[in-house]
Amino acid sequence: MAASPPRRYFDWAATAPPEAGLARYDTAVPFGNPSSPHAEGRAARDCLEEARSRCAQALGLKPETVYFSSGGTESNALVILPFLFRPGACLYSATEHPSVRENCRILEKQGKTVGCIPVEPDGRVSGAGLERSFEKYRESRFAAIMAVNNETGALNDLDALSGPLRSKKGAPLHLHCDLVQAAGKVPVDIPGWDLDSASLSAHKLGGPRGIGLLYLRKPLETLYRGGGQERGIRAGTENIAGALALASCLETYTRPDRLEASFRAAQERMNRLMRALETTGRYTPIPAGRKDAEDGRFSPYILQAAFDGVPGEVMVRALDQAGFAVSTGSACSSSRTGRPILEAMGLDPKLQLEGIRISQGWSTTVQDIEALIQAIGKVLDYL
Amino acid sequence: MAASPPRRYFDWAATAPPEAGLARYDTAVPFGNPSSPHAEGRAARDCLEEARSRCAQALGLKPETVYFSSGGTESNALVILPFLFRPGACLYSATEHPSVRENCRILEKQGKTVGCIPVEPDGRVSGAGLERSFEKYRESRFAAIMAVNNETGALNDLDALSGPLRSKKGAPLHLHCDLVQAAGKVPVDIPGWDLDSASLSAHKLGGPRGIGLLYLRKPLETLYRGGGQERGIRAGTENIAGALALASCLETYTRPDRLEASFRAAQERMNRLMRALETTGRYTPIPAGRKDAEDGRFSPYILQAAFDGVPGEVMVRALDQAGFAVSTGSACSSSRTGRPILEAMGLDPKLQLEGIRISQGWSTTVQDIEALIQAIGKVLDYL
Repeated sequence: MAASPPRRYFDWAATAPPEAGLARYDTAVPFGNPSSPHAEGRAARDCLEEARSRCAQALGLKPETVYFSSGGTESNALVILPFLFRPGACLYSATEHPSVRENCRILEKQGKTVGCIPVEPDGRVSGAGLERSFEKYRESRFAAIMAVNNETGALNDLDALSGPLRSKKGAPLHLHCDLVQAAGKVPVDIPGWDLDSASLSAHKLGGPRGIGLLYLRKPLETLYRGGGQERGIRAGTENIAGALALASCLETYTRPDRLEASFRAAQERMNRLMRALETTGRYTPIPAGRKDAEDGRFSPYILQAAFDGVPGEVMVRALDQAGFAVSTGSACSSSRTGRPILEAMGLDPKLQLEGIRISQGWSTTVQDIEALIQAIGKVLDYL
Repeated sequence: MAASPPRRYFDWAATAPPEAGLARYDTAVPFGNPSSPHAEGRAARDCLEEARSRCAQALGLKPETVYFSSGGTESNALVILPFLFRPGACLYSATEHPSVRENCRILEKQGKTVGCIPVEPDGRVSGAGLERSFEKYRESRFAAIMAVNNETGALNDLDALSGPLRSKKGAPLHLHCDLVQAAGKVPVDIPGWDLDSASLSAHKLGGPRGIGLLYLRKPLETLYRGGGQERGIRAGTENIAGALALASCLETYTRPDRLEASFRAAQERMNRLMRALETTGRYTPIPAGRKDAEDGRFSPYILQAAFDGVPGEVMVRALDQAGFAVSTGSACSSSRTGRPILEAMGLDPKLQLEGIRISQGWSTTVQDIEALIQAIGKVLDYL
């Protein structure tokens, strides 16, 4: 029997392949409970604070603004749910990840005023859209705007959006940014973007599951309580091995030189892919106005693409059979119906149905791209 | 220079020393996102469901009632916070862990009726105390009663308490049980105790940090949302390596034969310790009525003890210097002031101040106990 061809993974936006030396939980870390008063506890506490300092350093933050959580979803929930009991309206952009959108909907269900910031047809929040939202919801006190969209790669220009956000009249606004798809892939500038909070996840950075980070400019009275760990923001015995692994991931992938080199390489591979797909005559990038990989409105790590006449789910299945892992949209909603993010962009329903997400990462090779191009070609020949 | 003596660990109630083969996150587990549609996702999903089935089997549960969380604190919060938006009063026993007590206090702060079930001087909930609470809070819909107290080892007799709980008039009651200190140490019978929910943590079982379990008899609309993972109960990309490690911990330590043998050995060591401490003439068990290690009201894994004239914090520090890790009370509140659990038992303030917690585990040896007895004797000679 012939050996089966190697699997080629193009679903980095769902989770990154574990990176040797980053994804493991080092069992040699002090095992003590960081809240314990004895030597074992102190050693654990020192390790936890070392991890916090390293994460802070990698992100240009003060260590006391860095909190560890179990992942991106929990970090988003930790920030959003307290607004249940705070005054004012809450806004979220129309293409936020379900962990932002669904938690905002809980606020709404409980009677809170919650508004959706519209996106332009390219899937990005514009200054004008933001202004309209502020006019409609004058008492806004919270806005969630993600850095990189997980289904289309659309990049929100947080530098430019900071202006209208900060000049908003009335009570001050808390700006939250989901950085899960951005960290290690595109430049992230938490202090420069003047964020009040931000979320990160280790497993999108080649690290282990079950560990994430929450940046909070100022402490917030969170809903979820317990033994006062993480200065009362996130209760539960701290996951020190996870925190150290996350620190290593951030140090590895957010280093400007490495990030820049990886970004250029991702652009080159993405250009190769996009150009080849154009030659099929049946490909439409989503949104259709997305140009090449130099189009600064999109991350070169994520492409949403439609193939005329092939439903996205069929393409995903056919490519899976051929050894390629791609997906339709967010893994976090793949078992649901509909494509809320593409719908929010005003995308034609046929294209919504045909969309697949191809996402790459640091270890994706040109050979992987070439193989994918061939495989898509074969599917199109057949269907 | 002489080699320093080995450290001897008596703070198992705070966290267990990692067990070779159980505490590691196996990096060979499928890395895919269990929500992804492709082969990598399916392999991850299969692994997650295997972990769920194994945990369910070890606990005598149906797999569909088992949910993974990041730990005991989160499991408690997941169950308690939804009662913010459900009718009726919520009760918790006076000696619950902070992750139960503090989350119930959040409900109270938001205007919900929350009551505290008193404990007897031995730190245990009695049928009579429970009846009084039901009379006072006639609209009770939720009660949290832990299995084993984390500071005194007091065992609640859930078999006996189930009766009054189930015969309570009025709307049905949700009974939640924090099993964090019980699992693997004393017999646990979730179906027999007729529980509606229960919490478990891996790191108290020799497993890794960042993974816990929530049993839910029926799904509950939790507050914390996202991509619908764990059937909507607990959002966030699933920690498969953690779930598998937890399954192995439960299989290892909840096996009846092993549990029984470990329990008997813990009783023998505890008897040796208690008898030796009695000879110092300055020891009082907390509560004072606690007899020997056969006293069925207490777990033989945890002893709260006071030494006349030595504040607990001083004893902890002195023993730490001598190479022994003990603590005063819960690691989860060691940085706070006061001893709310001892206070709830109506304990004399002097004894509250003098209390230390000595907690042992599966790998504690008779030699460890003998060394601890000698070390406590030396401290008492000196102070």
